[in-house]
Amino acid sequence: MSIHVTVWNEFEHEKVDEKVRAIYPDGIHAVIAGYLNGLDGIEAGTATLDQAEHGLTQKTLDSTDVLVWWGHRAHDKVWDDIVERAHERVLDGMGLVALHASLLSKIFRRLMGTRCSLRWRMAGELERLWVIEPHHPIVEGIGEYIELPETEMYGERFDVPDPDKVIFISWFEGGEVFRSGITYTRGNGKIFYFRPGHETLPIYHNEQVLKVIGNACRWAAFGGSREIECFHGGKNIKEPLSPLG
Amino acid sequence: MSIHVTVWNEFEHEKVDEKVRAIYPDGIHAVIAGYLNGLDGIEAGTATLDQAEHGLTQKTLDSTDVLVWWGHRAHDKVWDDIVERAHERVLDGMGLVALHASLLSKIFRRLMGTRCSLRWRMAGELERLWVIEPHHPIVEGIGEYIELPETEMYGERFDVPDPDKVIFISWFEGGEVFRSGITYTRGNGKIFYFRPGHETLPIYHNEQVLKVIGNACRWAAFGGSREIECFHGGKNIKEPLSPLG
Amino acid sequence: MSIHVTVWNEFEHEKVDEKVRAIYPDGIHAVIAGYLNGLDGIEAGTATLDQAEHGLTQKTLDSTDVLVWWGHRAHDKVWDDIVERAHERVLDGMGLVALHASLLSKIFRRLMGTRCSLRWRMAGELERLWVIEPHHPIVEGIGEYIELPETEMYGERFDVPDPDKVIFISWFEGGEVFRSGITYTRGNGKIFYFRPGHETLPIYHNEQVLKVIGNACRWAAFGGSREIECFHGGKNIKEPLSPLG
Amino acid sequence: MSIHVTVWNEFEHEKVDEKVRAIYPDGIHAVIAGYLNGLDGIEAGTATLDQAEHGLTQKTLDSTDVLVWWGHRAHDKVWDDIVERAHERVLDGMGLVALHASLLSKIFRRLMGTRCSLRWRMAGELERLWVIEPHHPIVEGIGEYIELPETEMYGERFDVPDPDKVIFISWFEGGEVFRSGITYTRGNGKIFYFRPGHETLPIYHNEQVLKVIGNACRWAAFGGSREIECFHGGKNIKEPLSPLG
Repeated sequence: MSIHVTVWNEFEHEKVDEKVRAIYPDGIHAVIAGYLNGLDGIEAGTATLDQAEHGLTQKTLDSTDVLVWWGHRAHDKVWDDIVERAHERVLDGMGLVALHASLLSKIFRRLMGTRCSLRWRMAGELERLWVIEPHHPIVEGIGEYIELPETEMYGERFDVPDPDKVIFISWFEGGEVFRSGITYTRGNGKIFYFRPGHETLPIYHNEQVLKVIGNACRWAAFGGSREIECFHGGKNIKEPLSPLG
Repeated sequence: MSIHVTVWNEFEHEKVDEKVRAIYPDGIHAVIAGYLNGLDGIEAGTATLDQAEHGLTQKTLDSTDVLVWWGHRAHDKVWDDIVERAHERVLDGMGLVALHASLLSKIFRRLMGTRCSLRWRMAGELERLWVIEPHHPIVEGIGEYIELPETEMYGERFDVPDPDKVIFISWFEGGEVFRSGITYTRGNGKIFYFRPGHETLPIYHNEQVLKVIGNACRWAAFGGSREIECFHGGKNIKEPLSPLG
Repeated sequence: MSIHVTVWNEFEHEKVDEKVRAIYPDGIHAVIAGYLNGLDGIEAGTATLDQAEHGLTQKTLDSTDVLVWWGHRAHDKVWDDIVERAHERVLDGMGLVALHASLLSKIFRRLMGTRCSLRWRMAGELERLWVIEPHHPIVEGIGEYIELPETEMYGERFDVPDPDKVIFISWFEGGEVFRSGITYTRGNGKIFYFRPGHETLPIYHNEQVLKVIGNACRWAAFGGSREIECFHGGKNIKEPLSPLG
Repeated sequence: MSIHVTVWNEFEHEKVDEKVRAIYPDGIHAVIAGYLNGLDGIEAGTATLDQAEHGLTQKTLDSTDVLVWWGHRAHDKVWDDIVERAHERVLDGMGLVALHASLLSKIFRRLMGTRCSLRWRMAGELERLWVIEPHHPIVEGIGEYIELPETEMYGERFDVPDPDKVIFISWFEGGEVFRSGITYTRGNGKIFYFRPGHETLPIYHNEQVLKVIGNACRWAAFGGSREIECFHGGKNIKEPLSPLG
């Protein structure tokens, strides 16, 4: 039984910036979904901001096991009711893999409850992502670190809640560090934030970066109890399970 | 230097229900603030839903170190912009002590990013709150457990993110358990959720319950670095701290 | 590729106590291994205290993906060098599922670094294990709670480090609670402690208890990076990866 | 009421290495204790390996609120029964501040249950310790980062259990990162590991490093419940607290 992944991209830079188009002619989503579709046990589709309901209809989300999110300059254009819909689906068990600038997306910030603020610099510097949890399935097949020769820098203090697990910490040539791969659970949903990626750099053509995204999709798919009902608010249990004295 | 606490209460039950008024004639907030004002190093004021801006003006919140929150039937009446204001203040370092049904308040759910759903039963049953972290300042002066002879039951699955620390787990006569005292950090703010309390029961006259609330106010007050700026979004650090190759 | 499980049992009660023998004629290990061998993708063997090297030779441990441990009255009879050997293997990535009284075994206490002390009572009382993390693969197929009509009680304060995840919290008829299913990571090894089980009770014939143990074996098997070397002490990296100024 | 700190130092390098003696003529312990004794509310004594019982008699430990530990080349010379004694005291509520190479000390490894292995390089390179948790009392008075111009490098993967809080992450000029300030709770004891320090470098004359150590001593002192008994093993509670059916 396959894992159904939907790769969402705001898909704006690729249309207006020739440099971006040269790297991702069909959009970042196409590259990532293409990679995922080459893996056993994953079927990936795509969705973009300019589609009806941003391509995230209730039907699409209901059949999505893991949502990959890429947003950067158009966070505010995402309708609140679509964010609400995606949020509900995560709490019900849909996985979320949030990439790069998606740390400031509405969906990620709503799940975190914090500002997710950070420091950044665009200077094309070297990044080295160190593996902190070698035991974790997200780093299956990855060595001690991933080296990216040219990246945008993201630096701490990254204002997020304590992660369940810090999988990667990045070193940047210019002097900063960043928790670049972190996991969370919210409701029944598993969440992985992964830093690499920038529209003007071929990061999503890097085999190791793609491998981590593929691993993360497998990890984030729901695997718990389907016997336990998810509900809102308070559920009144009138009869005690054990007798009162 | 005193810790400034503001005890917020929706203050509705006390006005319409004679039984509640008999227990808390001046409101739950008055009882809690009264207790806190008897402690060394704490100065407590109050605020209620029916006041202008719910009593939570920017000025009041700016001078509040710890906000105690009690809401139950009027969560939806709290204006979103006041919730937003309180949320911002927590992220900037104001502590939050959320009591009883406040787990479904807007402010608590926004900070958690989850539904905070739970099971409940009103049958006046025995509750025993077991201390799970004896080392924690919130349980200073508390023994192995707190026993409350007559309470409303709250039961798991309580849909919240993994707490930083589980301080209390409750046992209920009717057969359920609940993580009744849990801590979080969000932004610079320290958060304590504490379950006991119901408007029709004299829970906030219980000395041990009050002691925990007092301890929690001391614990939740900001004590970290005032040298580090809190900001929104991304902060551009144009110059690298260390030279690029 | 199968997961190789070794079920270790001190196997003492079964030999000297007729009541225990009536429930587990071939030993607790035989019942658990029998169940596991009926699952797809798991091959289970057994080992006992009275075997040479307690049945845990280097060769056996090297080919074990997950070690299930059951000890109760003979913790002190386990040789320290076998404990050391098992400890090393856990840090290298072997999973460990520690059952019931094994919380006071040498191997579990060494991994925890704490006393693992607890309260207990043998009165054959009702236990209800509430699921706290419905999303977790260990509870796949399990409902809101597991009810065991007759158990030994274990009560908090259970002196263990904060778990990665609290999967189950138990309610006991006599008034206590217990974190009955908890996960840890130590080195590359995944650890699950699971409370149910007592030699004089048919707990390991309960289908739900067995299901959880099977799920836990699947979860605890190593799935991370085999590219990253595990080593002791300090590893000298003489050459900097990036040039020094 | 003062916090009683004992600063323990193996005190070997200072005796045999002129370069070390030039920086710490009376030993590293003397410098740290001297700083601490200048703070309000702290009284610091010292203890060293060459003293009877390494200066850590039962009486000394019983009156110590926080033990600061500095060891490097003589970990193996520390007697196991003194380690056991210190371990017991931590579990009973004594704080522990472990410095620099003490990550491989017996006491730290016993508390962690892991290898605490790491990568290292002695090349006198720049280190920048980024504050990850600005809200934490350990960083009171500290800015966004601490810069140390010349340090020994420690690099990930640092084989420790998930910390309660990651307070500092270090960036090293040569390309590595390290979780340089991490907190744990074990039993009733609070533990802080802090990386800076090397015998051939004047790190413990740095005002910010000292400030962090002072903050850590205040934080690590026990502040929880003295009403709850610490015990070993299982405590039999024969009578149920609530009646059995």
